[in-house]
Amino acid sequence: MKQSTANAQIAASMEAVRQGLLKRDARIVAGAYAPDAVIFDLAPPLAHSIDVDQLAKWLEGWGGPVDQKLQNFKFTVDGDLAVGHGLIRVSTHTKSGEDAAWWMRATVCLARQSGDWKIVHEHTSVPFYMDGSYRAAIDLSP
Amino acid sequence: MKQSTANAQIAASMEAVRQGLLKRDARIVAGAYAPDAVIFDLAPPLAHSIDVDQLAKWLEGWGGPVDQKLQNFKFTVDGDLAVGHGLIRVSTHTKSGEDAAWWMRATVCLARQSGDWKIVHEHTSVPFYMDGSYRAAIDLSP
Repeated sequence: MKQSTANAQIAASMEAVRQGLLKRDARIVAGAYAPDAVIFDLAPPLAHSIDVDQLAKWLEGWGGPVDQKLQNFKFTVDGDLAVGHGLIRVSTHTKSGEDAAWWMRATVCLARQSGDWKIVHEHTSVPFYMDGSYRAAIDLSP
Repeated sequence: MKQSTANAQIAASMEAVRQGLLKRDARIVAGAYAPDAVIFDLAPPLAHSIDVDQLAKWLEGWGGPVDQKLQNFKFTVDGDLAVGHGLIRVSTHTKSGEDAAWWMRATVCLARQSGDWKIVHEHTSVPFYMDGSYRAAIDLSP
């Protein structure tokens, strides 16, 4: 398979996640992941697998669409393995109408399984201030 | 090249990093990274490249060796690309002799460049508590 085809399919998977978040449809988002994907998320625990109910609950907690824009995202593909990393600007609003937005780092690993590219690992995070406050740095900009 | 050879070389790169941290020798650690590696670190900024002086300063800030033990770490290799993820237990002590240890998540991406496997991307993090405190969860265990 051509590299360009792989890249197009990977971009489609990432776009499916974005559309699922915009529609706040956990099933669409989850469809982009392999069932045994290992996720390192913004919130505890240290690691978890994809959980449609948990994701739906998180999405329902917001007052509107959850948008995520990828910045400086680059995927490297070799054979059936792909890795991408970059920054994501997440923006939404609360149920009381307040804007909520933050920058996070994201590393996404995909594998081609039976012809389809699925996310097999995802790591999103913000750093934390080592000034003694241990405060999550959700206020950083690139 | 055989998959087992690639895995052995990747394990050797990871062990070089561990030995460099134990000896608090930033040059040994940095030698495992590609010059243009993109690092998403525990501390701000959101992203940085390998910086021997910065790393040396961080290592000198501790009172003794910095050990890191990998747990549930698995690498997938395809062609010249490799990705691994798992948990790392970091343990050291402060200059005043207090123990310091934490679990973090790590995603490590390596590429084979001129026959050598180099770390081209590394993402380490802890999650943060979404209870309104925004406190970095450095107290989690797997």
